[in-house]
Amino acid sequence: MIKIRVINGPNLNLLGTREPEIYGTLSLQDIQKRLEEEAAGYGIELDFFQSNHEGDIIDKIHDARAAGFSGIIINPGAFTHYSYAIRDAISSVGLPVIEVHLSNLHAREEFRSRSVIAPVCKGQICGLGADGYSAALYVLQRRLQS
Amino acid sequence: MIKIRVINGPNLNLLGTREPEIYGTLSLQDIQKRLEEEAAGYGIELDFFQSNHEGDIIDKIHDARAAGFSGIIINPGAFTHYSYAIRDAISSVGLPVIEVHLSNLHAREEFRSRSVIAPVCKGQICGLGADGYSAALYVLQRRLQS
Amino acid sequence: MIKIRVINGPNLNLLGTREPEIYGTLSLQDIQKRLEEEAAGYGIELDFFQSNHEGDIIDKIHDARAAGFSGIIINPGAFTHYSYAIRDAISSVGLPVIEVHLSNLHAREEFRSRSVIAPVCKGQICGLGADGYSAALYVLQRRLQS
Amino acid sequence: MIKIRVINGPNLNLLGTREPEIYGTLSLQDIQKRLEEEAAGYGIELDFFQSNHEGDIIDKIHDARAAGFSGIIINPGAFTHYSYAIRDAISSVGLPVIEVHLSNLHAREEFRSRSVIAPVCKGQICGLGADGYSAALYVLQRRLQS
Amino acid sequence: MIKIRVINGPNLNLLGTREPEIYGTLSLQDIQKRLEEEAAGYGIELDFFQSNHEGDIIDKIHDARAAGFSGIIINPGAFTHYSYAIRDAISSVGLPVIEVHLSNLHAREEFRSRSVIAPVCKGQICGLGADGYSAALYVLQRRLQS
Amino acid sequence: MIKIRVINGPNLNLLGTREPEIYGTLSLQDIQKRLEEEAAGYGIELDFFQSNHEGDIIDKIHDARAAGFSGIIINPGAFTHYSYAIRDAISSVGLPVIEVHLSNLHAREEFRSRSVIAPVCKGQICGLGADGYSAALYVLQRRLQS
Amino acid sequence: MIKIRVINGPNLNLLGTREPEIYGTLSLQDIQKRLEEEAAGYGIELDFFQSNHEGDIIDKIHDARAAGFSGIIINPGAFTHYSYAIRDAISSVGLPVIEVHLSNLHAREEFRSRSVIAPVCKGQICGLGADGYSAALYVLQRRLQS
Amino acid sequence: MIKIRVINGPNLNLLGTREPEIYGTLSLQDIQKRLEEEAAGYGIELDFFQSNHEGDIIDKIHDARAAGFSGIIINPGAFTHYSYAIRDAISSVGLPVIEVHLSNLHAREEFRSRSVIAPVCKGQICGLGADGYSAALYVLQRRLQS
Amino acid sequence: MIKIRVINGPNLNLLGTREPEIYGTLSLQDIQKRLEEEAAGYGIELDFFQSNHEGDIIDKIHDARAAGFSGIIINPGAFTHYSYAIRDAISSVGLPVIEVHLSNLHAREEFRSRSVIAPVCKGQICGLGADGYSAALYVLQRRLQS
Amino acid sequence: MIKIRVINGPNLNLLGTREPEIYGTLSLQDIQKRLEEEAAGYGIELDFFQSNHEGDIIDKIHDARAAGFSGIIINPGAFTHYSYAIRDAISSVGLPVIEVHLSNLHAREEFRSRSVIAPVCKGQICGLGADGYSAALYVLQRRLQS
Amino acid sequence: MIKIRVINGPNLNLLGTREPEIYGTLSLQDIQKRLEEEAAGYGIELDFFQSNHEGDIIDKIHDARAAGFSGIIINPGAFTHYSYAIRDAISSVGLPVIEVHLSNLHAREEFRSRSVIAPVCKGQICGLGADGYSAALYVLQRRLQS
Amino acid sequence: MIKIRVINGPNLNLLGTREPEIYGTLSLQDIQKRLEEEAAGYGIELDFFQSNHEGDIIDKIHDARAAGFSGIIINPGAFTHYSYAIRDAISSVGLPVIEVHLSNLHAREEFRSRSVIAPVCKGQICGLGADGYSAALYVLQRRLQS
Repeated sequence: MIKIRVINGPNLNLLGTREPEIYGTLSLQDIQKRLEEEAAGYGIELDFFQSNHEGDIIDKIHDARAAGFSGIIINPGAFTHYSYAIRDAISSVGLPVIEVHLSNLHAREEFRSRSVIAPVCKGQICGLGADGYSAALYVLQRRLQS
Repeated sequence: MIKIRVINGPNLNLLGTREPEIYGTLSLQDIQKRLEEEAAGYGIELDFFQSNHEGDIIDKIHDARAAGFSGIIINPGAFTHYSYAIRDAISSVGLPVIEVHLSNLHAREEFRSRSVIAPVCKGQICGLGADGYSAALYVLQRRLQS
Repeated sequence: MIKIRVINGPNLNLLGTREPEIYGTLSLQDIQKRLEEEAAGYGIELDFFQSNHEGDIIDKIHDARAAGFSGIIINPGAFTHYSYAIRDAISSVGLPVIEVHLSNLHAREEFRSRSVIAPVCKGQICGLGADGYSAALYVLQRRLQS
Repeated sequence: MIKIRVINGPNLNLLGTREPEIYGTLSLQDIQKRLEEEAAGYGIELDFFQSNHEGDIIDKIHDARAAGFSGIIINPGAFTHYSYAIRDAISSVGLPVIEVHLSNLHAREEFRSRSVIAPVCKGQICGLGADGYSAALYVLQRRLQS
Repeated sequence: MIKIRVINGPNLNLLGTREPEIYGTLSLQDIQKRLEEEAAGYGIELDFFQSNHEGDIIDKIHDARAAGFSGIIINPGAFTHYSYAIRDAISSVGLPVIEVHLSNLHAREEFRSRSVIAPVCKGQICGLGADGYSAALYVLQRRLQS
Repeated sequence: MIKIRVINGPNLNLLGTREPEIYGTLSLQDIQKRLEEEAAGYGIELDFFQSNHEGDIIDKIHDARAAGFSGIIINPGAFTHYSYAIRDAISSVGLPVIEVHLSNLHAREEFRSRSVIAPVCKGQICGLGADGYSAALYVLQRRLQS
Repeated sequence: MIKIRVINGPNLNLLGTREPEIYGTLSLQDIQKRLEEEAAGYGIELDFFQSNHEGDIIDKIHDARAAGFSGIIINPGAFTHYSYAIRDAISSVGLPVIEVHLSNLHAREEFRSRSVIAPVCKGQICGLGADGYSAALYVLQRRLQS
Repeated sequence: MIKIRVINGPNLNLLGTREPEIYGTLSLQDIQKRLEEEAAGYGIELDFFQSNHEGDIIDKIHDARAAGFSGIIINPGAFTHYSYAIRDAISSVGLPVIEVHLSNLHAREEFRSRSVIAPVCKGQICGLGADGYSAALYVLQRRLQS
Repeated sequence: MIKIRVINGPNLNLLGTREPEIYGTLSLQDIQKRLEEEAAGYGIELDFFQSNHEGDIIDKIHDARAAGFSGIIINPGAFTHYSYAIRDAISSVGLPVIEVHLSNLHAREEFRSRSVIAPVCKGQICGLGADGYSAALYVLQRRLQS
Repeated sequence: MIKIRVINGPNLNLLGTREPEIYGTLSLQDIQKRLEEEAAGYGIELDFFQSNHEGDIIDKIHDARAAGFSGIIINPGAFTHYSYAIRDAISSVGLPVIEVHLSNLHAREEFRSRSVIAPVCKGQICGLGADGYSAALYVLQRRLQS
Repeated sequence: MIKIRVINGPNLNLLGTREPEIYGTLSLQDIQKRLEEEAAGYGIELDFFQSNHEGDIIDKIHDARAAGFSGIIINPGAFTHYSYAIRDAISSVGLPVIEVHLSNLHAREEFRSRSVIAPVCKGQICGLGADGYSAALYVLQRRLQS
Repeated sequence: MIKIRVINGPNLNLLGTREPEIYGTLSLQDIQKRLEEEAAGYGIELDFFQSNHEGDIIDKIHDARAAGFSGIIINPGAFTHYSYAIRDAISSVGLPVIEVHLSNLHAREEFRSRSVIAPVCKGQICGLGADGYSAALYVLQRRLQS
């Protein structure tokens, strides 16, 4: 059975309460639930993870290969803009990774339009809210199962 | 019946023959066919268009509202990086627009990582090949039909 | 009889409906009508033109000298910020050109504050809405008729 | 009776003698006289002022509201490029202000193309010589009297 | 009883021994003691915290609202210059936050003059040594108790 | 008796009427009154000054040492961003100077986040409204009297 | 018989009349005639084309391969400095392309020294007037015929 | 007996498997073993540490002085490019630190050529693979034992 | 009799007491005295002036031509780095002007190495202390008297 | 008889052995031989020179006028990117100079796309390999002999 | 017998007398002697060279291959920061080259932190004084002899 | 007897013939003669030197101390803008050095306004033609003889 890991970065645990005009009203639990249902529909196993600690996220990326995951969906939160360590972790494990952002990074503060992580990912989806995760899952399973 | 317009910018007519190591081996006709099938599955009407002329693309965006389209999927090709005129066209018509790119812009030449169009779109998908169009359609119909 | 050509760039055809909080509620037809009346008052013939196509605008600038126009008022729309081709067209024809913008470019997005066209124009008027055209006409006729 | 204040910044007192190939041969007195005649024609009272002292210009802007002026035409001279204090004065008094420059700032030294004042003005006119003042007056009275 | 959390970032545990010509000779314990006395004087409860771990600081900011704190005083140490994650944590919790620095950031290396955190704080105090904490507490209690 | 001079730069005379959503509703007289009461409480004499003229502010800084002041609190207003002359005046007199700003400079236009004066001051306080003056006074007297 | 396409961008139709101190006194027809004679001398067929429309130039580049051309000489005019769409067209067709400019781009305005097209061409010739076309033809035929 | 601490940053635990064309085929354990043998040859005790957590690395640097280490060799991995917190940790403890990188930072992506940590180290060695550690140890013992 | 005006900008009145390690121990009066003696030796009349007010300096420059001065020596102090108004005053009066600085601007803070005034002066002398004035006078009289 | 000097800068003596995938397999002697044959065909005398010493190249440029050369073809090698001294030498001698590069500078490292020498040359040819010299000779003789 | 060439750039002949607080008190002769002893210990022949002439250094690099050297240690002195000619010489000869600097370039003036030569070297060592040469030799022989 | 060395950089040997509208009509021999006469008047011995070779200039600077010179006047020509090697030579010898330029660097091309040498000189004189040398000599002897 194909396994996909979903990793969420700092402050995403506050989703739903945190600036809803930017990030929407769904909580991270809502997103997790919806995504697990979709994964089940695709016959895929999902591992959902959130942390405010950069090191824990790196560890989880490293662990993904050993633990038999076939792909990663990552919303690195604010780490997107400076964590070269997460970038290197992704290019080290050699799994297909899709970067997801709830808000449209290009319509916000200047610094958000630059991702230091995107260059080593397969692709990036931003601005589509929680649907961005679904779209990433949709594409990833399509590729892994074809 | 919901109608979505898909607009493709310069050089995308060469898809399949043009630098396949970057853009893949599917022709634009292949993508159109696949997308029309998916649209049919969603019960959505699709209008598929390509042009190498910036002015024609602007005209098509303007026309979208009058012609009753509910959303636009656009791959602006190289216009992504300088056509402020297409940007203004998008913000003028006030329809939800998703920007799609076949290749991962952030993993190529420096100039490709900047989109002058993304700030006025709903969101952006890049690096997922032809699946990017499918993902955009998937999200757009989900929103328009909910 | 002195003839002045008024050239309008991309998206100005949507005026009145397009983001009225920025561009005002007058349509391009309203501006044309008002300007033609003022021109008539000055005893001047007016040629009013709009296009979303950069090439068409260049052709119209080239044509202006042959067709006996004594000056040009141009609102290049978003071409203002990147069309070095229009810039060269203006410096090629050698007619007095006044650049007009409805909104105050300096109070909007950073990229709008730079005009690649202004350096080869006689002058620039921005932020005065439709009155900017009138002011340009007022100055141009004053100079051409003195 | 509507009153408009015209404020001229540093070195404009030398107009006519100062680099006439850039600034024209009219003296500031000539401009004042012409403008007062035009104002009279509009039924408007004009207050004309020049100073080389930034502080005096700020004081005059502050005073404008208390003294019952309905609008300001300002040629800030070289203060255009660095006086954030004049910028704040303008945004503080909340009157409509039009910025005027005799020469085309965009066709001269690089530093002149940036105005720190324009973002808080209603609009900007440059490159039209003394006619720029007339155009500003023409637009301002049109708005204030309509 | 009003509660205020004081958060100290990396390397501040070495205070007193660490480069005293820059940071002074008081230890962090000295500052804590002095600040707790002042808080007691204001009738305010203080929670004092230090960590070299970015993730722990984010967790503490998140926890502040749930735990009933009314405001935060934060000295983010070197995280000031790159931790967009702490920035987002602050804007997420919606509490008044004052950023404090012992040394005058503007009189040191270029990179220290930029705070990525300050834009989402209430205000910033720097260069006043341990008195900066006292000043922040003084202002915060004044606002919360009025 | 210790004497402290408080210097206010351009446009601060309009405080209370000027953009109250940014600068608050207290007038400069209100702030002066409150500060004088606090100074009296500390047994300190206060000299309160405002000017829109850069030169007058420099003169007042020069005069401070001769006139026996022990410290300066300065809100340079917009001079903050370009007056290297005030910067040099401060480093010339060799008195402890605290820079105060009512609004949070880091949460406004890009240009406001840079102070050319801060590097030669003791420290900087911003974003705390009128309380910023009080905090500066609180710290200054504490240091001068200990 | 070897066929070479010569493509000329915007404003080159005005050659001879347009700023002759920069571009020389030969018209585009003169250059075409001379070049066709030289091509005949080499036993090569020449297709000569000019347009002010970016889209038409892209179409002509696309068409070159299908139409059996072995190489392209292009003077992109002002498109040189921003048309990433023409750049992509050139790298898409995979023919040897030599970029030619009449004037020395490096001795004019700053923006002219950057070509977004040159990186995907075989080489670039500038500053040699109409002889630049001849030199490009000379090199191209030498390579194609050897 | 002289003790030296060797600290390795994020992703170095993957050495040998991670992009061997850049980082070589030795695992971190191989390097540790080789280095411990060399240290033994010098009569020096080695403490070898790796972590993906910035905070843990800071703690280890702080601990080094108390624990009696005489010098540090650090390969900060990707933290090299943004961890001002590690920089401050190093300048706080006041021990001689040599920064080591396996690959030649100057021959890779632009961002890798800047180290925010190097300015507070004794020196930097890069591009010499695992030999870089040996060279650092060779120099450090030579200095500490002379 | 040839007359030369010597103008000194802000903070130069503090010379001798102000940061003597940078500016030397001579007071401005000392320099004036020495310079007047040298001028007398050359048979030249000297007008020596200092002000902290930008506007006063501009007025003095304007006045120089009317008052029959043949040249100006100016030490603009910190105005050097931002007063485009003084720059314009100098280019307006058309007299030979030599810019003098006591300290070596190029060996101090970055911002001091840029003079906005130098481009319109005859030349610039810096770093030679009070001798810089003497050198300027020496050159100016040599030219005016030859 | 017309004489043309050909000057080659640093490392060009290694041509043929040096990175042939960039610079081709012809040695400098091969190029010299071919060029001398072509020159003979034109009835022109050629002086061919190479040096790794900037000063020797400057001396050769200086000497060219005295020695009766009518033009210079120069491949400055890496001096292209920083030798303002060679630039000044070229503008000093006042002979027509054509700059030649074997490789396409615009398709290589960023720093190679900037030539400090090109602005004072007649024109520049790059990317055409050894044919670039031939093209330069072809154009130069055509101009000198017409 | 393996031969290694050691090349020293401009001003290194003054070592020991030149700014010893930066460069140490060893003369270049001292370093040479020590290095030759170490080389002898490794059974390696050393050629030691210094020049203030860029061209001579390039010639020596070129000569290294022909003369049978297996590697180069180079301290390019100030040429590090601009000599693209030396860079090209190194990439031309294809020998392993290690760049050495006595001082820590990253702790000095901004311009010293950029090496135009490092990207084509094997690696770089800086800040370790004369030990840097020893470390380079240590690594080079280890590689060449294994 | 005090000895001063005067060093002239590249292309200054062409003085008088080279672009006289920029550099004046005096030859370098004229300047040398005049300067030697002035030196004789001061009782000072002068050594006058010119070279187009950077290395020779460095050697002459090194030699100055050994040869008993008390100061250096240097016109580095175009080396001013990039020769960090000459900069280091000057800071190495520890003699007072005055940098002289005939033309006003600040009124010419942008790149000429930056001197990499000035920060380590005593001072800089530019724009005063040959009088600049005289002024430098005047100041230098005054200091050395007092």
